Amino acid sequence: MNSFGTIFKVHIFGESHGACVGVVIDGVTAGLLLSENDLLPDLARRKPNNQKGTTPRKESDYPIFKSGIFNGKATGAPITILFDNENIRSEDYEKQRDIPRPSHADFVAHQKYGGHEDYRGGGHFSARLTTALVAAGVIAKKMMPNIHITANIISVAGESDIDKGLQKAIDAKDTVGGIVECIISGVPIGLGEPYFNSLESLLAHSIFSIPAVRGIEFGTGFKATEMFGSQHNDTIKNMQGETSTNHAGGIVGGISNGNKIIFRVAFKPASSTPKEQESINQKTEQIEKFSIKGRHDLCVALRAPVIVEAVTAIVLADCMLLEQKISRVL
Amino acid sequence: MNSFGTIFKVHIFGESHGACVGVVIDGVTAGLLLSENDLLPDLARRKPNNQKGTTPRKESDYPIFKSGIFNGKATGAPITILFDNENIRSEDYEKQRDIPRPSHADFVAHQKYGGHEDYRGGGHFSARLTTALVAAGVIAKKMMPNIHITANIISVAGESDIDKGLQKAIDAKDTVGGIVECIISGVPIGLGEPYFNSLESLLAHSIFSIPAVRGIEFGTGFKATEMFGSQHNDTIKNMQGETSTNHAGGIVGGISNGNKIIFRVAFKPASSTPKEQESINQKTEQIEKFSIKGRHDLCVALRAPVIVEAVTAIVLADCMLLEQKISRVL
Amino acid sequence: MNSFGTIFKVHIFGESHGACVGVVIDGVTAGLLLSENDLLPDLARRKPNNQKGTTPRKESDYPIFKSGIFNGKATGAPITILFDNENIRSEDYEKQRDIPRPSHADFVAHQKYGGHEDYRGGGHFSARLTTALVAAGVIAKKMMPNIHITANIISVAGESDIDKGLQKAIDAKDTVGGIVECIISGVPIGLGEPYFNSLESLLAHSIFSIPAVRGIEFGTGFKATEMFGSQHNDTIKNMQGETSTNHAGGIVGGISNGNKIIFRVAFKPASSTPKEQESINQKTEQIEKFSIKGRHDLCVALRAPVIVEAVTAIVLADCMLLEQKISRVL
Amino acid sequence: MNSFGTIFKVHIFGESHGACVGVVIDGVTAGLLLSENDLLPDLARRKPNNQKGTTPRKESDYPIFKSGIFNGKATGAPITILFDNENIRSEDYEKQRDIPRPSHADFVAHQKYGGHEDYRGGGHFSARLTTALVAAGVIAKKMMPNIHITANIISVAGESDIDKGLQKAIDAKDTVGGIVECIISGVPIGLGEPYFNSLESLLAHSIFSIPAVRGIEFGTGFKATEMFGSQHNDTIKNMQGETSTNHAGGIVGGISNGNKIIFRVAFKPASSTPKEQESINQKTEQIEKFSIKGRHDLCVALRAPVIVEAVTAIVLADCMLLEQKISRVL
Repeated sequence: MNSFGTIFKVHIFGESHGACVGVVIDGVTAGLLLSENDLLPDLARRKPNNQKGTTPRKESDYPIFKSGIFNGKATGAPITILFDNENIRSEDYEKQRDIPRPSHADFVAHQKYGGHEDYRGGGHFSARLTTALVAAGVIAKKMMPNIHITANIISVAGESDIDKGLQKAIDAKDTVGGIVECIISGVPIGLGEPYFNSLESLLAHSIFSIPAVRGIEFGTGFKATEMFGSQHNDTIKNMQGETSTNHAGGIVGGISNGNKIIFRVAFKPASSTPKEQESINQKTEQIEKFSIKGRHDLCVALRAPVIVEAVTAIVLADCMLLEQKISRVL
Repeated sequence: MNSFGTIFKVHIFGESHGACVGVVIDGVTAGLLLSENDLLPDLARRKPNNQKGTTPRKESDYPIFKSGIFNGKATGAPITILFDNENIRSEDYEKQRDIPRPSHADFVAHQKYGGHEDYRGGGHFSARLTTALVAAGVIAKKMMPNIHITANIISVAGESDIDKGLQKAIDAKDTVGGIVECIISGVPIGLGEPYFNSLESLLAHSIFSIPAVRGIEFGTGFKATEMFGSQHNDTIKNMQGETSTNHAGGIVGGISNGNKIIFRVAFKPASSTPKEQESINQKTEQIEKFSIKGRHDLCVALRAPVIVEAVTAIVLADCMLLEQKISRVL
Repeated sequence: MNSFGTIFKVHIFGESHGACVGVVIDGVTAGLLLSENDLLPDLARRKPNNQKGTTPRKESDYPIFKSGIFNGKATGAPITILFDNENIRSEDYEKQRDIPRPSHADFVAHQKYGGHEDYRGGGHFSARLTTALVAAGVIAKKMMPNIHITANIISVAGESDIDKGLQKAIDAKDTVGGIVECIISGVPIGLGEPYFNSLESLLAHSIFSIPAVRGIEFGTGFKATEMFGSQHNDTIKNMQGETSTNHAGGIVGGISNGNKIIFRVAFKPASSTPKEQESINQKTEQIEKFSIKGRHDLCVALRAPVIVEAVTAIVLADCMLLEQKISRVL
Repeated sequence: MNSFGTIFKVHIFGESHGACVGVVIDGVTAGLLLSENDLLPDLARRKPNNQKGTTPRKESDYPIFKSGIFNGKATGAPITILFDNENIRSEDYEKQRDIPRPSHADFVAHQKYGGHEDYRGGGHFSARLTTALVAAGVIAKKMMPNIHITANIISVAGESDIDKGLQKAIDAKDTVGGIVECIISGVPIGLGEPYFNSLESLLAHSIFSIPAVRGIEFGTGFKATEMFGSQHNDTIKNMQGETSTNHAGGIVGGISNGNKIIFRVAFKPASSTPKEQESINQKTEQIEKFSIKGRHDLCVALRAPVIVEAVTAIVLADCMLLEQKISRVL
C-alpha cells in the first residue's frame, strides 16, 4: 500500500505530528557513494525557506541514515532514512478535531480508518511525508548520472509571472495553485512497457502520489486534442530517434523515445486557506464556521518542483534497472 | 509487466496481426453470472461500427471464454477470454516495415526489442488489445452493481459540438483528437490509499495504459491552478460527506469521498493520418516521404469512452475488494 | 493469485475438463528462438506414456502458441500457450459430485468458492495445469543455456529401487509416493536475496505450487539437524567459492554460492487410490463408501521430475534477470 | 526484495552492527490496541536469555514505535518499529574480514554486493533481523485472536530429549541443529490459492526467510512418501471438514481445510562453531585456519520457535485479509 516500484522500491511511513517521517529504499546500487550531505540541497529546496507564501513551520529536515550505508557507500541492503519531527504544535489540530477541514483528508481518513487515524496535522496524509520522497529521489538521481531531471514552476494563480501570481495570493489573503513543468534529458530509448506499465502510467502514478496534484499532461497534452494528426506527429529525423518536434513529450507507445521527456503537473490551491470557511461538525452534526490556524503555505506548488523531480527519479531508476541500463553493483 | 491490479488482476496479451488478443483475469467474484452476451454491448461500443471517422477493419470481436466459467458463472479461478484475429491484411504493414511511422511505437519497439518485435499493425502495441481491456471492464462493472461509470466524449478537435469537430477531420482528410469525460457515481467513501496508491494514482496509471492518452485531470483539474483555495475548497454539507461543490472530483487525500468521481482524459489525434508524412528509412538511413495505407480511425477518441470506463472499472473493482466493500464469493 | 515472478512472470489458467489449460509468460528474452517442437520433449516427460503406474487418460498435450512469437522468435511481448483438453470424460466426475474425495481439493474448493467451482476432474486444481508449468519451464531453461537443471526420482514407496517401489503399488492396488531430487549446475554466485526472497524461499514457494508436494529440503536437509556445525560447514576452497563439501546444497544466506544447488521434494501417494474409501456425502450429510473411477496415476512422483525442473527454471530465470546475469534482448 | 505480503506487508531493514534493525508493516487493522509491552513476551522468547547454548550478546531488544500508532492503537497507516543496536563489538569482525566464515553469507555477500556489504556480524544477513520478524509476528497474531500458533522444538542434535541433545553440543564444544514443529489451530477453511499461492507455498516461502532453515515438511511430510494412498488419505467426517486423521497437516490442494495446520522445520547447526576451521583468505588467496570469536549460539533452533510462529502469523494475517475473514478496521 505504501510502497512503489519493482527493483528500486520505496516504502514511506510516518506522520506529521508523530515521532518522525521516513523511508525504506530497496534496490539502491551497491557501492553508490552516499552521505547525508548529498540529500541536503534537494531537501532545502523543499523547505519553506522564508520564501514568500510558505509556511513558517521550521523543521531541520536533517536526514538520519539508519541502515544500508557503510563506509559512506550503499551496501545493497535496504536504506532507511528518518526525519525526526521537532517543531510540533499539535494543539492547533486538537481544536480542529471535530470539524473536518474542507478538501483535506480529515473526513475521508476518519471514515476509512474508523476514527483511529492520527488526525494531527493530517497525520500520515501530511505533505511532510514528501520529505521522504525527496530523500529517495536524490538517491535515485545519483544512480543515474546521465539523466537530468529539472522541474520548474511555470505558472502561479494562472500567471506565468510567478511573482504576480503570488502577489494575488498575498493580496487576497488566500491560497493559490500553480503548474510545474518537468523536463528530463538523457533518458535512453526503451524505458516503459506497452499498456499497463507505460512510462506515462508509471510517471502519472507517482506524480499523483504527491498531495494537491489535480492533473498531468505529457508533451502537448490537452492542447493536442485540438491539433490534426499531421501537425501533432513528430517526424523521426535520424537513427538516434531524434524528432523534429516533440509533441509526444518523449514517450511514444508508452516507451521513452530518446527525446526529452516533458510533462506538466497541476497543483490545486492549498486547502488550508486563511479565509473563514464552513464545514460539518462531526459531533454536533451542524454546519460551523471556522478558520484554520496552523502554519501553512499560500502556494504549495512553490515547493513542489523538487518533489516532482523526486518521484520522477524514483520511476526512472526503477525502469533503468529493469531494462538493465544501470548496474546493480558498482 | 503486462499485469495490473492486486486482487482483481488483469493480464493482457496478443498482437494485432497474430492469432488473437486476450486477457486473463484473477479475482472475479465466484458465483458471478457471466456469459459472452454480457460482453457484447460494451464490445460493440468499442467497434468501428461504420461510425463516421472510424476504421473499416471489420472484426467480429466475439469473446471466447477459455477458463474460469462453469455453468454460466465465474468459478473463482482465473477467467481467460480470447478474441481471434480474423480480418488481417498484414501486407499493408510489410511494405511499411523499414519506415517507422511517426508517433507510432514502431521505432521504439524496434529499439527496445532488438528488431524481434511483431511489427505488423503495431503488434502488441496495437489498440486492438483494448478489446481485452473492455472485456475485463465489463466483468469489473458486473462485480459492482451499485457503481455507475459513464464516459462520454465532450470535445473533438477542440469543438464541444462533436459533429463539427469530426467534420473538421473529414474536411482536412486528417485525424483529430478529443477529450473524454468520465463520471462515476455510487463509489463508497474510502477507496484508495494515501500517497503511492492514491485513487488518482491508480486511475491515472490505468488511463495512461490506453493508447493515445496525453493527459488526465480530476475535478476542476488544470483550471484549479487559477482558483483561490477558498473558491476551490468543497464544503462538507452532511455526515455522508456530500459537498456543496465538487472541485475535487470526488477524491480527497487520494481517497474517494463519496461524491461523484469526475475526470477528463485527453486523446491525441491518431498517428495514422492519411496525409503524406516523412520518416527515416531504417535500412537506407535516408528521410523518405510515405503515406500510411492500412485502415484507421480519423478520431480514436470516438471509440475511447468504453475503454476509459473499462480501465476505471478494473481499478475500482480491485479497490472495492481490497477495502472488503464487495465479497469474493456470492 | 495465479501469477509468479517479478520480471519472468508466469500466469496459469484453465481447468481439467474445461476448454483448455494454458499459460501467459512475461519477460521472455526478445529474440529467443522458440517453436512448439522445443516444448515437446519435456511435455512428453510429463505425459502418462504407458509407463507402469500412470493414468490411461490420453491427451496430445500439443502446445498452441497464441501470442508473443513472431518469425520463430520471442518478441518480448507476453507469450501465451494453450493446451486444448480433448480426452474429457466428465461423467466420471458428475457421479462423484456430492462426495468430496479424501485429500483432494473437492471439499475446500466447494467451501472457498461457495459451490461455484468447476468440480470436474479437480477443475483448476487439477494436475493437468502442470502442463502449463512445464511449457513455461522449457522457455526458462532456454533462456539460461549455461544452467543445467536435472531432477530424478530417487525413491518410490520408500524404496530406492524404483521398480520395487512401483511393484508395491501394483501389488497393493494402491497409490504410492516418492522423492524427487533436483540438481542444478552452472548457477552463478549471487542469486537470491537475504531474508524474504532467499533462493530457498523462492524455490520452495514454486515447488509447493506443484500438487502433492509435502516437503522440501536443501542440501543435507533434515539430516543436518543431527550434525555438528564443524561437520556441516562447507569449507571454501578457492576464490570461485568452490566448497570441499556441499551440505548447504549450493545456497548460503539465501544466496547461491556457485556450487551445485541440490534439493529433494517429497510427493505424497496420489489421493485417487483405486481402493474403496469413505467420505461425507454433502447432500445427505452421511458418511458413504465409494470408489474413485476416473483415470489416475499409481505414483504421481513418476511424472514429477520434469515439473520440478520447470518451476525451478522459472525461479532461476527470474533471478538471473533481476541480477542482470542474462540479457532481456538478444 | 525485502518485503513480503500483499495486504499485510512487512519490510525489514537494518544490520547487526549498524544503528538498528527494524520493520515497516502495512495493513495492520486500524483500531488494534498495540503497545510496546505487547511485543515484549515474544521478543523475550527470542532473546538469548542465559539459556544453555545461547549467545552472551546482550541487547535490550526494546521496540521503539516510530509511526502508525496513535493513542495506543494502530491507525491504519504503516507501523514502523526500530530496535537500536547497543551491544556492538565490531572489532571481533574486523579481524575476520578477509576470511569468509564457512556456511555464513560472508563470501556470497562479498560477491553479490561487490565488496560494499556491511560485513560486521553478518550485516543485513544477521539473525538479529529476526527481531523485526518477531515484532511483526506479534502484531499479526493480535489481528487474529481466534487463531493459535504454537511452535516448539522437538529435537536437538537428533535427540527428542532436548537437554540430551544440548549436552552433546556442550560436550563437543560444537554447535548442533534441531527441528521445530508448528501447530496452528483455529484456521478457517479456505486460506491459500491453487498453485502459486498455495498455503504451503506461502508458509514455506516465509519459513525459508529464517536463517539456518534447511527443510520444511507439512503433515506427515517425507514419511508420506512411504505410505499407500489409502493410508495417507484423510477421511472427511463431517460438514465442518473435520478429518479422521491429519496426514495432510491441515492443507489440501493448497487450501486450509479447517483442521490443525502442522509443519516441521529443520534448522542446521549454527555455522559459528567454536571449533577451529579452515577457509580461504580473500587477500592472500591461501587457505587459513582460524577460530570464530564473536558471541554465538550453540543451537540456533532453541530461539527459533518464536520466529517460526512470527513468519507463520505474517502469512496467515495476509491470507485472512485477502479472504476477508478479518476486517481492515475495528
